[in-house]
Amino acid sequence: MPIGDSIYSLAKELYPICRSISGNGVRDTLSILQREVPQLTLHEVPSGTQCFDWVIPPEWEIREAFIVGPDGNKVIDFKNHNLHVLGYSTPIDRTLSLDELQQHLYSEPSQPEVIPYVTSYYSERWGFCLSHRQRESLVPGDYRVYIDSRLNPSGSLTYGEVLLPGDSNEEIFISTYVCHPSMGNNELSGPTVATYIAKWLTSLERRRYTYRIVFIPETIGSICYLSRNLYHLKKTVVAGYNLTCIGDDRCYSYVASRQEDSMSDLVAQHVLRHIAPDNIRYDFLERGSDERQYNSPGIDLPIVTLMRSKFWTFPEYHTSADDMNLISPSGLQGGYELVRLCLLTLERNTVLRTTTLCEPNLGKRGLYPTLSRKGHYDSLRDMMNLLAYCDGTKSLLQIATKLQRPMWELLPTVEKLRNAGLLTESADKASP
Amino acid sequence: MPIGDSIYSLAKELYPICRSISGNGVRDTLSILQREVPQLTLHEVPSGTQCFDWVIPPEWEIREAFIVGPDGNKVIDFKNHNLHVLGYSTPIDRTLSLDELQQHLYSEPSQPEVIPYVTSYYSERWGFCLSHRQRESLVPGDYRVYIDSRLNPSGSLTYGEVLLPGDSNEEIFISTYVCHPSMGNNELSGPTVATYIAKWLTSLERRRYTYRIVFIPETIGSICYLSRNLYHLKKTVVAGYNLTCIGDDRCYSYVASRQEDSMSDLVAQHVLRHIAPDNIRYDFLERGSDERQYNSPGIDLPIVTLMRSKFWTFPEYHTSADDMNLISPSGLQGGYELVRLCLLTLERNTVLRTTTLCEPNLGKRGLYPTLSRKGHYDSLRDMMNLLAYCDGTKSLLQIATKLQRPMWELLPTVEKLRNAGLLTESADKASP
Amino acid sequence: MPIGDSIYSLAKELYPICRSISGNGVRDTLSILQREVPQLTLHEVPSGTQCFDWVIPPEWEIREAFIVGPDGNKVIDFKNHNLHVLGYSTPIDRTLSLDELQQHLYSEPSQPEVIPYVTSYYSERWGFCLSHRQRESLVPGDYRVYIDSRLNPSGSLTYGEVLLPGDSNEEIFISTYVCHPSMGNNELSGPTVATYIAKWLTSLERRRYTYRIVFIPETIGSICYLSRNLYHLKKTVVAGYNLTCIGDDRCYSYVASRQEDSMSDLVAQHVLRHIAPDNIRYDFLERGSDERQYNSPGIDLPIVTLMRSKFWTFPEYHTSADDMNLISPSGLQGGYELVRLCLLTLERNTVLRTTTLCEPNLGKRGLYPTLSRKGHYDSLRDMMNLLAYCDGTKSLLQIATKLQRPMWELLPTVEKLRNAGLLTESADKASP
Repeated sequence: MPIGDSIYSLAKELYPICRSISGNGVRDTLSILQREVPQLTLHEVPSGTQCFDWVIPPEWEIREAFIVGPDGNKVIDFKNHNLHVLGYSTPIDRTLSLDELQQHLYSEPSQPEVIPYVTSYYSERWGFCLSHRQRESLVPGDYRVYIDSRLNPSGSLTYGEVLLPGDSNEEIFISTYVCHPSMGNNELSGPTVATYIAKWLTSLERRRYTYRIVFIPETIGSICYLSRNLYHLKKTVVAGYNLTCIGDDRCYSYVASRQEDSMSDLVAQHVLRHIAPDNIRYDFLERGSDERQYNSPGIDLPIVTLMRSKFWTFPEYHTSADDMNLISPSGLQGGYELVRLCLLTLERNTVLRTTTLCEPNLGKRGLYPTLSRKGHYDSLRDMMNLLAYCDGTKSLLQIATKLQRPMWELLPTVEKLRNAGLLTESADKASP
Repeated sequence: MPIGDSIYSLAKELYPICRSISGNGVRDTLSILQREVPQLTLHEVPSGTQCFDWVIPPEWEIREAFIVGPDGNKVIDFKNHNLHVLGYSTPIDRTLSLDELQQHLYSEPSQPEVIPYVTSYYSERWGFCLSHRQRESLVPGDYRVYIDSRLNPSGSLTYGEVLLPGDSNEEIFISTYVCHPSMGNNELSGPTVATYIAKWLTSLERRRYTYRIVFIPETIGSICYLSRNLYHLKKTVVAGYNLTCIGDDRCYSYVASRQEDSMSDLVAQHVLRHIAPDNIRYDFLERGSDERQYNSPGIDLPIVTLMRSKFWTFPEYHTSADDMNLISPSGLQGGYELVRLCLLTLERNTVLRTTTLCEPNLGKRGLYPTLSRKGHYDSLRDMMNLLAYCDGTKSLLQIATKLQRPMWELLPTVEKLRNAGLLTESADKASP
Repeated sequence: MPIGDSIYSLAKELYPICRSISGNGVRDTLSILQREVPQLTLHEVPSGTQCFDWVIPPEWEIREAFIVGPDGNKVIDFKNHNLHVLGYSTPIDRTLSLDELQQHLYSEPSQPEVIPYVTSYYSERWGFCLSHRQRESLVPGDYRVYIDSRLNPSGSLTYGEVLLPGDSNEEIFISTYVCHPSMGNNELSGPTVATYIAKWLTSLERRRYTYRIVFIPETIGSICYLSRNLYHLKKTVVAGYNLTCIGDDRCYSYVASRQEDSMSDLVAQHVLRHIAPDNIRYDFLERGSDERQYNSPGIDLPIVTLMRSKFWTFPEYHTSADDMNLISPSGLQGGYELVRLCLLTLERNTVLRTTTLCEPNLGKRGLYPTLSRKGHYDSLRDMMNLLAYCDGTKSLLQIATKLQRPMWELLPTVEKLRNAGLLTESADKASP
């Protein structure tokens, strides 16, 4: 089965769960991911904990919610769609006139068919979200609103973490979020692709880097995680990616890090240039996901966000139209490949140098024709270029960029030349 | 009254005075400017004083000059236009044939209606300037030429200087020239705009920088000024502008400094990009005003010339057509605003850093909506971007440039964030 | 006689000689060049000598070679064209069927009229090269093949070297090759132009730099030369050029050095920009001549290849069509001028500074008009710009580049200003 189908199946399984920035929806989601990646550990941070400028909010518990119309029929039912309830709604059980009810309804007039995704994490409200078409069909009369929810001050915020040790203590950091209810691209694509990336990493014979993959609620989750791990991360993280909106088929894109030319940026640019020459580069000015926190002043982690269609840019964004039809097996597989090639490039990037002065005699090693005639030189370009540019100062990534070749396509030739004793790890880098 | 009208009135008052690189025309001009800016002081440098490779020439005194034609009528009279006499003409009182006279006449065949502006400061000559049309109408016969002038070896060169102290001893240097007789853009625009800039600076509650504004004759004046003040200027000047041809309505332009990327250049570029996106950048190769001396090797002051239509580029340049109709209240006001915004940008540019790690919780401070829904993020972009980029290493000017926003439009948001305790002066810069 | 004609005559004289990477053809060629440049010395390196990863091959001796067809007539005769014999053919004297013979024939089906240039230096073979048209006309039957050649293990590889001392021990290195038989652009143009460059250098009154010009067989020759002189070259070479394919009239081009911005590159770019604005820059990725060895990792000499039409790019390349009609007196003269101007630019490039502060008073020295009127400033631009930019930090080449002027056209003005005492060698550079 193509890996895209497996990722899609996982997303489908997770789709019905009502996630938020805290609560059992997150726990249920993480325990399904744990089934796929047993190395995943769960962490609970109590409500009320101070995290830099923020405080972990009460845990949200939601069981049931509906509106009964003047005719006694349920107009809206949380059972039908998670998005129907304003995220972090306080409980309510009252009967209201339509006019009073309108103050608590959220719809999107410019997209009359969809239910918008609205939340109020840090200010107590209750509310319902519905399509604008449905809202306009509501007739005057008495409406019973009922939300069986609770903001539990003794609760906690939950996140998941996978740590995969490598030869080096230097870390590659991957982040994605698990707080979005019942939406596809934003955001079941991120955690499901991240899960399969974790599976791929565990399958590798050896890893040069240590990998840390976090499944967190957006904003408060990354701020909370950073407040508990900043010292360690600043010492060890050499590159990293935030994964979001990475499952549709429309395009490839990324948000640059604040420093713009970090190793994470260079690798993402290199991979995207070769797998999707028409990819879109978004400046850090157009940030909007957890790269905001990772790159903020004083945190300064070089995290790039990898995406297919960027949040904000597609019409289904933050509505019920961002469903399982918006993402696809091929879209998810493309996103997975993008991430995998970035990590592969990081893993295999190194500094090599030639072992001879001048070009070596390749003919006597059977690596080059002994008959010199017009035109055959081109076919061995990669080999000749590696020998010309591996001078102990340039990384393989820099050389591949110079050659306008995907770094991963040079690896077999690199191996051939290492096996022939013509290339070697540069002394500076060979020492652990 | 719009400030452009005030500047224009001042220019009109100064227009009839016959200025040159020395003499009472300069003194009369400076004493009118002194009425506007009492801080203006006059300096006299005796003729014969050595200034680097130059010597202050004798002071030129001119009282009367005319040519009487064969029919006994005055063909040319200095009373009618200052430009009729060659600048620094020696005295003469003779009768000549038309052929002999022609050797001492200056006209511009390609612009037959205008009187050209011609001088001979360092080689003794006498001469008259007239329109080519008039020259061609002269009939053979005897002409009486009369110039009542004197080159006084005991005279002096006069310049004016305004010094406005600020919190810091670091200086912003502004230069303009007062040697051009009866011309508008080149050059009553420079000294009149500079005068109103001085008035604006004196009106400020506090000044971060000390300001030095000099009103000098071109070339010999800046060389003389530099020869007397070089040590002080090299220690204190952090940026500066030369003002010339800054009163017409056709365009905005500047001449880059020799070093091309000085603070003076960066600020001028920033202001011009926002107030006049179609401004013209002239390389230092196209210099021609006193920026030549300020930027010369060994002097090395980073002085940029600010202009509307650059000298040499407009047809009226150095002719009687550069009159009070070429400049206008709106043209002068635009030039004034350009200079004012450059100085404001220099004054307010600083290095800030955020006081929290990660993004602060703006909602709890009433700076951000507590309801999270599609699309509202954009309206608070300036605030979020300042918090993302103020990392204690980038200046506000660099950040504004990154954001493609005029720095001065960010200042209210900066104040709001400073008042909320979220931004603070970077430690390095906060110390005096 | 224009110098191009002299160079062409020399090429014509050398054309019939059968050169290879060793043997008497090389010696005969070098002894003719020695007649032109008596400073040329010959060096012999014994077969079997180890040179880095390579071994000097046996010396090739070739006396006679032909094929007699079924009808008893000579089908191919080495006497008619040197290219008819595969370079480094082993001896043979046998009678074969046409089918057997075909295994040893080389032709170029896409260019049926020409004899291709084919060699096998490091693997023993025998063979004949012929036009594809002729090959297709061969009829079945018995063919006698006869090659009277020898691979002499007691022979040697021969190269020539010209050393022209200058004021400084710093060296300019020039390389070209003498191993190609009977071809014009590639490669009689290189050694003949190099010879006339050597003659020009010997004619100079004084040389600032020491010049080293080598006439070597390609690849094995440069590797051999480097293996014997590397330490000296790395200490002394400041710039250098490899000359090849430099005698046709079609275009001007160069191959950049591996470091891309060496002095050799900057000078070549400067000269080419002015003498041939439509010149072609080939990246080091498109290398293919001895610049491969000089720029290889660990060797790291900044050698740029100067060309008219680059090897590989013209259809006659490595065939009998690259003959004396492909090159021309004007093509060779253009190549010569390119090299000469590069060397002149290197020789005369220096760092100057002005001797006055501010602009000097040029009028009193008779260098500038004393009458100031509209428009005359432009005609003295070079002088004013040299005075504005010679600040003791920028080289004349950098200033010429800034001014968009050929450096050599500024030299008379530089002399005028030095003679007037207004420019002087910068202290740092004036000391030996």
